[in-house]
Amino acid sequence: MSHIYLNSSMLQQLNHTVQEYVADWMRSQPLHFNNTKLVSNPATMKTSSTTFLVTLAVAYVLYRWIFPVAQRQTSKPVSFGLPLPEAAQKHWKGKRLHSISGIPSNGSSDDSQRIQCHCPATGQVLGSFPSMTEKDIDVLVSKAAHAQVKWRETSFDERIRVLVSLQDYILENQDLIARVACRDSGKTMLDASMGEILVTLEKLQWIIKHGKKALQPSKRPGPTNFFMKWYKGAEVRYEPLGVIGALVSWNYPFHNLLGPIIAAIFTGNAIVIKCSEQVVWSSEYFITICKKCLESCGHDPDLVQLCYSNPPTANDNTANYYSSHPQLKHLTFIGSKPVAHHVLAAASKSLTPVCVELGGKDALICLDSFKDLNALSSIIMRGTFQSSGQNCIGIERVIVAATNYDKMVSILEKRVGKLRLGSDIDNLEDVDMGAMISDNRFEQLEKMIESAVKQGARLLHGGARYKHPNYPQGHYFQPTLLVDVTPEMDIAQNEVFGPVLSMMRGKDTDDCVRLANSAPFGLGGSIFGSDYAECNRVANQLHSGNVAINDFATFYVCQLPFGGINGSGYGKFGGEEGLTGLCNAKSVCYDKLPFISTQIPKPLDYPIKSNRAAWAFVKSFNTGSYTRSAWVRIKSLISLAKNAN
Amino acid sequence: MSHIYLNSSMLQQLNHTVQEYVADWMRSQPLHFNNTKLVSNPATMKTSSTTFLVTLAVAYVLYRWIFPVAQRQTSKPVSFGLPLPEAAQKHWKGKRLHSISGIPSNGSSDDSQRIQCHCPATGQVLGSFPSMTEKDIDVLVSKAAHAQVKWRETSFDERIRVLVSLQDYILENQDLIARVACRDSGKTMLDASMGEILVTLEKLQWIIKHGKKALQPSKRPGPTNFFMKWYKGAEVRYEPLGVIGALVSWNYPFHNLLGPIIAAIFTGNAIVIKCSEQVVWSSEYFITICKKCLESCGHDPDLVQLCYSNPPTANDNTANYYSSHPQLKHLTFIGSKPVAHHVLAAASKSLTPVCVELGGKDALICLDSFKDLNALSSIIMRGTFQSSGQNCIGIERVIVAATNYDKMVSILEKRVGKLRLGSDIDNLEDVDMGAMISDNRFEQLEKMIESAVKQGARLLHGGARYKHPNYPQGHYFQPTLLVDVTPEMDIAQNEVFGPVLSMMRGKDTDDCVRLANSAPFGLGGSIFGSDYAECNRVANQLHSGNVAINDFATFYVCQLPFGGINGSGYGKFGGEEGLTGLCNAKSVCYDKLPFISTQIPKPLDYPIKSNRAAWAFVKSFNTGSYTRSAWVRIKSLISLAKNAN
Repeated sequence: MSHIYLNSSMLQQLNHTVQEYVADWMRSQPLHFNNTKLVSNPATMKTSSTTFLVTLAVAYVLYRWIFPVAQRQTSKPVSFGLPLPEAAQKHWKGKRLHSISGIPSNGSSDDSQRIQCHCPATGQVLGSFPSMTEKDIDVLVSKAAHAQVKWRETSFDERIRVLVSLQDYILENQDLIARVACRDSGKTMLDASMGEILVTLEKLQWIIKHGKKALQPSKRPGPTNFFMKWYKGAEVRYEPLGVIGALVSWNYPFHNLLGPIIAAIFTGNAIVIKCSEQVVWSSEYFITICKKCLESCGHDPDLVQLCYSNPPTANDNTANYYSSHPQLKHLTFIGSKPVAHHVLAAASKSLTPVCVELGGKDALICLDSFKDLNALSSIIMRGTFQSSGQNCIGIERVIVAATNYDKMVSILEKRVGKLRLGSDIDNLEDVDMGAMISDNRFEQLEKMIESAVKQGARLLHGGARYKHPNYPQGHYFQPTLLVDVTPEMDIAQNEVFGPVLSMMRGKDTDDCVRLANSAPFGLGGSIFGSDYAECNRVANQLHSGNVAINDFATFYVCQLPFGGINGSGYGKFGGEEGLTGLCNAKSVCYDKLPFISTQIPKPLDYPIKSNRAAWAFVKSFNTGSYTRSAWVRIKSLISLAKNAN
Repeated sequence: MSHIYLNSSMLQQLNHTVQEYVADWMRSQPLHFNNTKLVSNPATMKTSSTTFLVTLAVAYVLYRWIFPVAQRQTSKPVSFGLPLPEAAQKHWKGKRLHSISGIPSNGSSDDSQRIQCHCPATGQVLGSFPSMTEKDIDVLVSKAAHAQVKWRETSFDERIRVLVSLQDYILENQDLIARVACRDSGKTMLDASMGEILVTLEKLQWIIKHGKKALQPSKRPGPTNFFMKWYKGAEVRYEPLGVIGALVSWNYPFHNLLGPIIAAIFTGNAIVIKCSEQVVWSSEYFITICKKCLESCGHDPDLVQLCYSNPPTANDNTANYYSSHPQLKHLTFIGSKPVAHHVLAAASKSLTPVCVELGGKDALICLDSFKDLNALSSIIMRGTFQSSGQNCIGIERVIVAATNYDKMVSILEKRVGKLRLGSDIDNLEDVDMGAMISDNRFEQLEKMIESAVKQGARLLHGGARYKHPNYPQGHYFQPTLLVDVTPEMDIAQNEVFGPVLSMMRGKDTDDCVRLANSAPFGLGGSIFGSDYAECNRVANQLHSGNVAINDFATFYVCQLPFGGINGSGYGKFGGEEGLTGLCNAKSVCYDKLPFISTQIPKPLDYPIKSNRAAWAFVKSFNTGSYTRSAWVRIKSLISLAKNAN
C-alpha cells in the first residue's frame, strides 16, 4: 500500500477543507440547522438526521485516515479493574438515618471524631471514616513527596499513558462512577452524566491533546537593549513544583476531585487532595481508581493521596495544618468565601500560593434581539436546576431585556411548575431534580426568598423545603421561580447555590449590563442575542472572569483558563494556565552567540578608578541603548569608547 | 525616492542576515571576542575597537533604514519639566542629624506621626512627611478610580505615548534622578545608573516594543469534544482590573516605584502605590515625574497616587487598611518575609490577589570547567557589593567547585580589601560602596558573621559596622569576605541583604547544586561554566524562579517574568506575565460557524421524559465524543440517534 506524505500546513489545509465541507453541507440543509436540535425533532427530521450522522461518520473516517499519527496515541492505554463498594451497586438497600440530621441507625455514634456519610437523596447510610490527624497528613505528604522524585522524571508520553488509561476506565464505567457520585451527593444520574463525567473526559482529552504543547519551554523576546539584544536569549521553562494540594468542594465529588489530580499527574507533581467531609465515601473510591490506574501503568500509586478531616474547631486544627503545610507548594481551593478566608490566612503563614475559586452570582442575559425564547428557556432550566442549583457557575440571575421579559416569565412559569423531585440512582422513577447536599442552608434560603417577596419580588413557584414522601430523610428544596427581582434584594447580592430561578427585568442592553455588574461576584456569565457584535460588546463589559456567548458555561467545558474576579476569587485552573500554574515557571537567560559573553567593563570594575568616568560610561551606555535618535546613538557610542579606558 | 516593500517574513530574513553578518564578523576577529572587554583593553585593541563601533553604527543605520516603521514610534513623545527639590541639586548642603539614629537638628520632633527622611550616606536631613491616615487612602483610591474610568478606554498607542515621553525624560535627566535616589538611599551614583536607570529604561522600552502583543486576545484550542470542536471558538481577553496597588521596598526607590507604575499605566489600570517610609522624600519627587508626564500627554494625573505611612502599631492600622482595601484589585508586594505575612493576612480579608516578591539567598555557581576566574571575580564583586548588597537578587553565596575554589578565594581576598566606603553623590571623592539604608540590622549582621566564624568559616575582610570619618551619621558596613561557609551556618540559610561575600566550596558539579539548593529561598541564581550543556543541566536542577547562565541577573534585565518560589514568594512581575497578571484574563467562548448553536437535546429537556433514556443519551454522547475507536464512535452515533426521541 502506498503512503501519502503531507506536511503540516497541507494537513491543516485538509482539516480546514473537511470542516468547511461539513459546514457547507449544514448550511445547505433546508431547515434552520442545529446539530443537537436536529436529533431531537423526531418525526419530520428523521431522514435528514440520518443523513447528517452518516455524513459525520464518513467525514470522521476520512479524517482518521488522513491524520493517523496525530490522532492515535503512541502510548497504549492499560486497562484495570477494582473492587466495588457494596453501595455502588444498583438497587443497593442501605439502612437509613434515624432522623434527617441525625445519628445513623447502625451505631458508631460513640466516636464523635468520625465522619459520617449518607446519601442526601435517600438518607441511606454509606459509612463512617476517621477524621485525619496532623500526623496522618505528614505521612501522606511524605509518601507523595517520595513518589514524586521518580515521577518528575517521567516523559510526557508516560504521563499521557496514565491519562489515556484513566479516560478509558471512565468511559467504560460511566454508570458506576455516576452512581457512586449520586449516592454521596444526592444528584440525579443525568446531572452526573454531564457535570461529573463529560467535563472530566473533556479535561483528560484536552490535556492529552494540548497539554504537552502548553508545557514546552516558551521562548521570549529577550532584552531590547541595543547592546544586549544581539546575544541574549530568554525563555521560560515549566518544571514540577513537588507536592501540591487542593481543597475541593462537595458539589461534584468526582469531577472536582479528578480535575486537580489530572493536572498534577500531567505536570509531574504529586498531590495530596483534601475532599469535603460531606463526600468522603465517594472520594475514597475515586482516589482508588487513580491509584489503581497509576499502579497498572507501572508507577507508584502514592503519587496521589486523599485527605479529609472535620471542619476546624478549638480542639482540632487539622484543616488549617493542611492549608499551611510547608511541603505543599501550591493550593487550589474550590469552595465558599468564609472557608477561603481561613485557608488564605493559613497559607499566608507558609507563603503557599493559592488559586481561589469561590462562588458566583452568574447572570444569563437575554437581549432584545434574541428570538427563540422557547429554546433559551430549556437552557435556563438546565443551567439553573442542574445539581439542584449547587453549581458555582449555575445561573443565579436571569436578566431579560424589556421586550422579552414577560414572555420569558410566562414560559418559565409553565415549565418550573412541572419539575419533580426525587432520586433516579436506582432508576425507580423519572425525576427532574435531586436532593441538596444537606438541609443546613434551607432556613437561609427560605428567608432570602421571603425577604425578596417582601421587597416586591413575585414568587411563582416553590420557595420552601420539601419533605419527600418516599425519602423523608432526604434534603429536598422546591424548585423555585422568583420574578421581578431587583439589585437591592439580598437574593440579588448573595449566592443562592440552590434551585432558585431569579428573574430581573432590564430596560435595555445597557441596563442588563448594569444589573449583571451589580453583584459583588465575578465568576461567569452568558449572553444571548442575535447580533453577534452586540453580544461581544456586552461580553467585554461584564465584570467576570468567564463569558459564554449564546451558550451556557461552555467556557468551562472548553478548557479555557477558569477563574473569577472580585468576590469570586482569583487565579485560574483549567487550560494552559491551569497547567503552567502548577509549575515553577523558571526564567532562564543565556548567551545566543558563541564567543560573546558579558564582562564587566573596565570603568565599572572594582576598585572604581574614577566615579565620574564610571557614571559617564553608564550614562552613555543607557543613552546609546535606549535613545530613539540615530545621531544621539552614534554620539553615545563615541562617548562610550572615550570613557572605556 | 522609491520605496521597497517587504513582507514580514522577508523582514525577518533580513534582520537575521544582519545579525549573522555581525556575528560572523565578530568570529573573524583574531582575539577571543567580547563586546565589552574589547572596549576595555585600550592599547592593543584600539583599532579593532573603532572598526567594531563603526561596523555597529553602519549595521545600525542599515537596520534603521530597512525597518523604519517597526522602529519609529508612531506616538510622538511629549517633553516636560518640573521644579526640583532643593536637595536634588549637586553640592547641596543640608543640615545633618544630631546623632545616627536621632532627631534632626531642625525641629519637627514634636510631631511623632511624621515620617523623617535623611540621607543614609551623610546624615543630611531631607524633610518630614505626615504619615497618611485611612481617610487619606480612601481619597487616593477614589481619585485613582475616577481617573481610571477614562484611562481604561485609551488605545495602546496613547499609553505608549506616555511611556515614550517618560523614557525621554529619564534619558535626559539621568543625573538628577540618580542623585535623588542616592540622597534617599545612600547608594553610589554608579549603583543608581544601573540599578535604577538602566533597568527602568529597559522595562519601558520592552513594554513599548512588546507590550501590545502580550495583551492581544489569545486564541485557544477550544474543546476536543467530537461534537463541539467544529463550532466552538475560545479565546482569552485581557482587560484592565481597575485600581491596583503595590507595596515596594526602599532598596531601589526609583526603579521599584516606577516598575509597577509603568505596568499599571500600560495595562489600563490606575495605581495607588505605597512606598517604604524610608524613602518618602524621593518617592514624592518620582511620583511627580509620572503625574507631570501623564498631564503633559493630556491625561488625568490622578491615575497614579503615592501613599505612605508608618509601620502598623497598636494605634495605627493604616498599613493593613491599605493592604485590605476592597477597591484595590491586585497587590504587588516587594519586601521582606515578616512584612509579607502581614500583607497576606490583610489581603486575605479582601480576597485580593498578591504577587509576593521576597528576598533570596541567590547562589553564583562556578563550575570546574570555568576558566577566566579574573573576569568572573569582577562579576562576583559587582553582584555582591552593588547597592551595598541590598539587592533581592544580589549574590548571597558564591559556590565554587573544588578545582577553582582556592584560586578564587585568593583573587577575591586581594580585591575585597581594596573597596572604599563613602558617598559619590556630589562627586567629592572616588568610592566603591555607599551606605546602607539604616543601622538597624548591623548587630544582626555582625552576629551572623561571628557565629559563622565560630562554626569554622574564615573571615578574610570586614565583618563589622564602619564609622566613616567624614560622615559619622552615615550607616556604613565594612565590605566583608567570609570563606569556607557551610550550609549548617545561619549565614548560609538566612538572607544577609548586606555587603557580605560568602564563599562555599563544592566538591563537584552535583555538590554545587546540592549546596545551592540547601537554602530555603528560591529567587535567582547564576551558573558559570564553559560547557553549555552542563550549565543548562544545572540551570534545570536549581530550585529557583530565575537563572542566568554565564552572566549575573540578566533574567531581570531581559524582562523575563520575574518571581521566586519557596521562601522567595510567588507570582511574577515583568515581561508578558507581568502585564497579563494585572488584567482580568477573561475566558470567552463563542460560536465559530454561522447557523450552529447549542440547544438542549429533547431527552435532556425538563421535564425529563425518561431518566433511563436521558442517561443513555448522554452516555452515548460521552462515548462518541471521547472514544479513540472509530467503530465505537459509529456505534455511539447510532445509539445517540436512537435515544434522541
